[in-house]
Amino acid sequence: MRKTITRLPGSKIREVANAGLGRDDVLAFWFGESDQVTPEPVRQAAAESLARGETFYSHNLGLPELRAALREYTASLHGDPGDHRIAVTSSGVTALMLAMQLLVDAGDEVVVVTPVWPNLPAQPAILGARVTRVALQPDPAGLWRLDLERLIAAITPATRVLLVNAPNNPSGWTLSRDEQQVLIEHCRRTGTWIVADEVYERLWFGARGACAPSFLDVSTPDDRLVVVHSFSKSFLMTGWRLGWLVLPRGHLDAMAKLIEFNSSCAPVFVQRGGLAALHGAAASVPVLVEHLRGCRDTLCNALAALPGLRLAVPPGGMYAFLQVPGLPEAADSLAFAKRLVTEHGLGLAPGAAFGEEGEGWLRWCFASRDPARLLQGVERLSGALRL
Amino acid sequence: MRKTITRLPGSKIREVANAGLGRDDVLAFWFGESDQVTPEPVRQAAAESLARGETFYSHNLGLPELRAALREYTASLHGDPGDHRIAVTSSGVTALMLAMQLLVDAGDEVVVVTPVWPNLPAQPAILGARVTRVALQPDPAGLWRLDLERLIAAITPATRVLLVNAPNNPSGWTLSRDEQQVLIEHCRRTGTWIVADEVYERLWFGARGACAPSFLDVSTPDDRLVVVHSFSKSFLMTGWRLGWLVLPRGHLDAMAKLIEFNSSCAPVFVQRGGLAALHGAAASVPVLVEHLRGCRDTLCNALAALPGLRLAVPPGGMYAFLQVPGLPEAADSLAFAKRLVTEHGLGLAPGAAFGEEGEGWLRWCFASRDPARLLQGVERLSGALRL
Repeated sequence: MRKTITRLPGSKIREVANAGLGRDDVLAFWFGESDQVTPEPVRQAAAESLARGETFYSHNLGLPELRAALREYTASLHGDPGDHRIAVTSSGVTALMLAMQLLVDAGDEVVVVTPVWPNLPAQPAILGARVTRVALQPDPAGLWRLDLERLIAAITPATRVLLVNAPNNPSGWTLSRDEQQVLIEHCRRTGTWIVADEVYERLWFGARGACAPSFLDVSTPDDRLVVVHSFSKSFLMTGWRLGWLVLPRGHLDAMAKLIEFNSSCAPVFVQRGGLAALHGAAASVPVLVEHLRGCRDTLCNALAALPGLRLAVPPGGMYAFLQVPGLPEAADSLAFAKRLVTEHGLGLAPGAAFGEEGEGWLRWCFASRDPARLLQGVERLSGALRL
Repeated sequence: MRKTITRLPGSKIREVANAGLGRDDVLAFWFGESDQVTPEPVRQAAAESLARGETFYSHNLGLPELRAALREYTASLHGDPGDHRIAVTSSGVTALMLAMQLLVDAGDEVVVVTPVWPNLPAQPAILGARVTRVALQPDPAGLWRLDLERLIAAITPATRVLLVNAPNNPSGWTLSRDEQQVLIEHCRRTGTWIVADEVYERLWFGARGACAPSFLDVSTPDDRLVVVHSFSKSFLMTGWRLGWLVLPRGHLDAMAKLIEFNSSCAPVFVQRGGLAALHGAAASVPVLVEHLRGCRDTLCNALAALPGLRLAVPPGGMYAFLQVPGLPEAADSLAFAKRLVTEHGLGLAPGAAFGEEGEGWLRWCFASRDPARLLQGVERLSGALRL
C-alpha cells in the first residue's frame, strides 16, 4: 500500500459515531445530511425509470435532458453558462476528484482554505500533490473570517489550484462577491485554477430567494474555473450520489474521458431522480431553505442562551460551529465529542475532523425534520457542560 | 489541463457509434453489455428500497448484508475469503481505480497484459504511472495466447503492479490455473501486486457451472492481490454502477478512506438491487451463461461459414474477436468499423480501441436477447465483405 494512503487521516466523525454504537438513544447531528427522506416525486421518477427498464450504460457526461436542465437551472441563478460546459457526475465528491485528476500532477501545489471537510485536501494528497492550508480565523464572537491578503500571498505562479469550499463546511463562512473578484483576477495573473465547491450555495440565509455569491458570477467561460455541485444538500438526495461540474469551454471531451475511466456514467434511474428534483426546484428549494433557516435560528438561539459558548449564527450551510472556551477538556474535540456521545447521547462532529484549524470546536448539523430534536440536543449539551 | 489527460486516447468505440448517428437501423454490437433489461426482481428490490425511504448516506464499504452476501458468493466459487476482505464499490471500473489509488504512486511501473479494454491502462496513466504493455499473440486460427515467459521477464522488483483482465475483453483469452500459480509465485518474489480484473469469471464456457480460474484459488489472504468484480456482466446490471473488491487482510480501513474520498458510498437502493441479484444468482447465472453460450455458438458458427475470417471460438467473456486478413481496408480497424456502420448498419468495436495490439481486429459483443439479431449482423458483414 502507498505511504500516502496510510497517512491519510481516517474520519474522526466516524470514530465518534463508532464510540456511540453502544447507545440506542443517541441524538445524532454529526453527519452532513438532513434526516428528511428524499421527496416522493424524485423517488417516484427513479422507480418509474427502473420499471421502464432504463438499466443500461448511458452517456459519460450525463443524459442530454439532465444536462439541459442543469444549464437552465444554472442560468436561473448565475446567467446562462453557454453550451458544452456541464458534466453530470456520480456525486459532488466524485466531481471534485475528477476536477483534481483533470488539473493536478503529482508534486503540484494546491492551496486549500481551511478548516474544511476532509475530502477536499485528501483528494490532491491522493494524487501526490503538495497541499498548502490557509486558515480562516474566528473573531471573538465565533464568526470565521478570511484574511484575503494572506490567501492572495499564498497563491503564486507555482500554485496549480486554489481549492475553496464556500459556503463552508464546517464554519458557515462564505466568500463575498468582491473577494471572489479579487481572487479570480489574481489567479488569472498567476495562471492558477480555481476549484470552487459551491454545493451549499442555495443554503444561504441572506435575502429570501437569494443564493450565495458564486465564482460563476464574476467569471468568463474561458476562466480557469471549475465549479462543483451536488444534488445532496439542496434536494435532500445525499444517498443518491449525483452531482455536476461547470467547466470552462473546451474541457468536456477531457472530462468525458475521465468519467469513463473513473465510473463510466451515473445510473440513468438516478439521473431521472435528479431531473425530477430540478423540475421541482423552484418550489422545493425555497421551502427547504426557510425550514433550515428556522432550524438554524432555533438551534443558535438555544445555544446562545447557554453560558460560555463561542458561536456565531452562520450565514450559510447547515452547520453550527461552536466552541466551549472555558472548558479545558473540550480543547481535545475528538475526546470531548466521544464523551458527549457515550455519556450524554449527543452526537456532534469534532472540529479536528476538519483540520487542526478546527481543533477545540464542534460541528452541529441543524438540518432536522423536527426542530424539537435540536432543542433536545441542546438540553443534553447543557447537561454535559454542567458536569 | 494536465498533458497526461490531453494525451489519454478517447473512446474509439464511441467514435464509431457517433459515425452511425445518422442511421436508425444500425445493429449495434459495439458496447460491452447485453441488450437484456435487468431482471425484474432486482429492479423491484431497488424500487422498494426507494419507497421505504432509503435515501441516506451508507457505510463507505457497503451494506453489511451485501458484504456478507458477497463473502458467501465468493465462498461458493473460491472458498471462504474470510472476514474483512470485501468492499462494495460504485462499479467495477471504480473498483479498479480505487485499487490503483491504493497501490500506485506517480512514476511507478505497471505491467498490463494487452490487448485490453482501454480503462485498464488509462487508470495508472492518470495517476502518473509508467505503463508497460505485454501483448498476447493470436495463433493462426485467431486464438489469443500468452507468452508466459515474456510476461514473467517483464515483471521485475521495479514493477509495482501487474494488471490483468482474464477472461479478457476483447479477446476471450484467459489465464490457466497453472499460469496464475506461476505468476503469483513470481510476484511474491518481486514484491509486485496483482490487480486481477475478473469481472467475466462467470461468463466461462468450460464445464457447465464452472467459472474461470481465479487468482483467489491460488492465493492466501495475505498475498498482494486485489480482485475486482462487477455486477454488470453476470447479473445484467451495467447501468447500475455496482462492483466490489476482494482485498488482502488488513486493507479495508485504507479502502474505506479511499471510497470516502472518491464517492463516499454506493446508493443503498442500488445495493439492495445487488443483494437481490446475489440471492437469485444460483438460478439466474447458469441460465444467463447457457444463453450466452448459445449466442456465442450461433455467432461463431455463422462467422466460420464466411470465407476469409480469422476467428477462434472464445472460451470466456461475451465477445468474438475477429480479423479479415485478406482485406487491406480492414487493417485500419477504426476506419473499417466506421464504414461498416455507415454503409452497412453493422456496429462493431474497432480492435484499435483496445490498443495497437488489437489493430486490424473487430470486437463483436454477442450478448443478445435474440440470437437472430446476431445472424442478421452476420448477413450484413457478409454483404460488406463481398464489396
